[in-house]
Amino acid sequence: MSRASEKATWRVLILAFDGVEALDFAGPFEVFTTASRVAGRLRPGSTPPFEVASVADAAPGQPVQARAGLQLLASHALAGSPQADLLLVPGGVVDAPLASPAVLSWIATQAAGAQVVASVCTGAFLLAASGVVTTDAVTTHWEDIADLRARFPALDVRADVRWVDNGRVVSSAGISAGIDMSLHLVERLAGRELAERTARQMDYAWTRNPAALPANPSA
Amino acid sequence: MSRASEKATWRVLILAFDGVEALDFAGPFEVFTTASRVAGRLRPGSTPPFEVASVADAAPGQPVQARAGLQLLASHALAGSPQADLLLVPGGVVDAPLASPAVLSWIATQAAGAQVVASVCTGAFLLAASGVVTTDAVTTHWEDIADLRARFPALDVRADVRWVDNGRVVSSAGISAGIDMSLHLVERLAGRELAERTARQMDYAWTRNPAALPANPSA
Repeated sequence: MSRASEKATWRVLILAFDGVEALDFAGPFEVFTTASRVAGRLRPGSTPPFEVASVADAAPGQPVQARAGLQLLASHALAGSPQADLLLVPGGVVDAPLASPAVLSWIATQAAGAQVVASVCTGAFLLAASGVVTTDAVTTHWEDIADLRARFPALDVRADVRWVDNGRVVSSAGISAGIDMSLHLVERLAGRELAERTARQMDYAWTRNPAALPANPSA
Repeated sequence: MSRASEKATWRVLILAFDGVEALDFAGPFEVFTTASRVAGRLRPGSTPPFEVASVADAAPGQPVQARAGLQLLASHALAGSPQADLLLVPGGVVDAPLASPAVLSWIATQAAGAQVVASVCTGAFLLAASGVVTTDAVTTHWEDIADLRARFPALDVRADVRWVDNGRVVSSAGISAGIDMSLHLVERLAGRELAERTARQMDYAWTRNPAALPANPSA
């Protein structure tokens, strides 16, 4: 499943919207930016494995209001954003983006051009509503499993996993599981050593899917 | 050590500055805001245990540039910020705030009026440089333990712990350890049930100090 040699630098775009859960957004941001920092120390002068930017459902230069009051200024607005190699869709309070044709269309278009699409928490609802997943195996926050099944009965919604990796689409459980899934993506896309060093740099006890991968010796 | 009944609502102020590590900031933000959300569900209509705001070393209305390019708009500038009950000082690239008399003075003044002061990662350097800790037991990121000892030889710098709690000052290890420490503060200030439910809401495997507290039965 390793694609470590597939491309030099993965352009990671993380979507932001009013109501986005702060840690759904900031956890993956921290993982991919730290991975590139760690890679630069391991191999000085090498091409960074990830370049991370954010894209907001907001007017250019205007902040999004993350859940509980945090204001973020994204790198790009939806219109004119570059194409992601890895599109990351966080969750949170997703009623507004679920009702926004502009957001759903942006996700669908980006997903069509991305090699990998990933969701955190209730971001899975946005992947489903935009048609990126239809009958796929996915997961979401434990509290939203029943709702995701009810709204999208053709989906194969899995409970009690940290993430589900279908190859092109990867979805994680709630909030902090986005960190675990992002470390998994670092492993898959840039190698296991870098993923483990990134977790160590973040002082993070990586929770993996026990059946999918061997135990983390440093956990 | 419980102060659960000491005050109705703890005003948590989280410092932001150019170079702040995204997860040092966003992890505690997520914990304290989620704790208040969970408390509101458990006891509808009750006073929230935490009110969280951010304070930036930036001109009013101007963003801070977090490490690796994330832009945050804080609730307050240093001048005119309210007094914290719980002051939280994140780390990251701290050279600029360490060299800023305005930031160090703000930390010292806020700390004098706060019941609890907490640092994440290299935020411990800011507590030491502002005189908030002098001979106290503290911790920091594993990579910075030696540097903290060298710069502040009177400090009792502890390695291999998730956090050190001195009562008034609590410091955590690197980056994600700020989440563990914040859950500990929720437990100490608002009770164990709320802390465990907050971790569960965040889908987070809480890493505690094994000697300091009993194992988390839900982990």
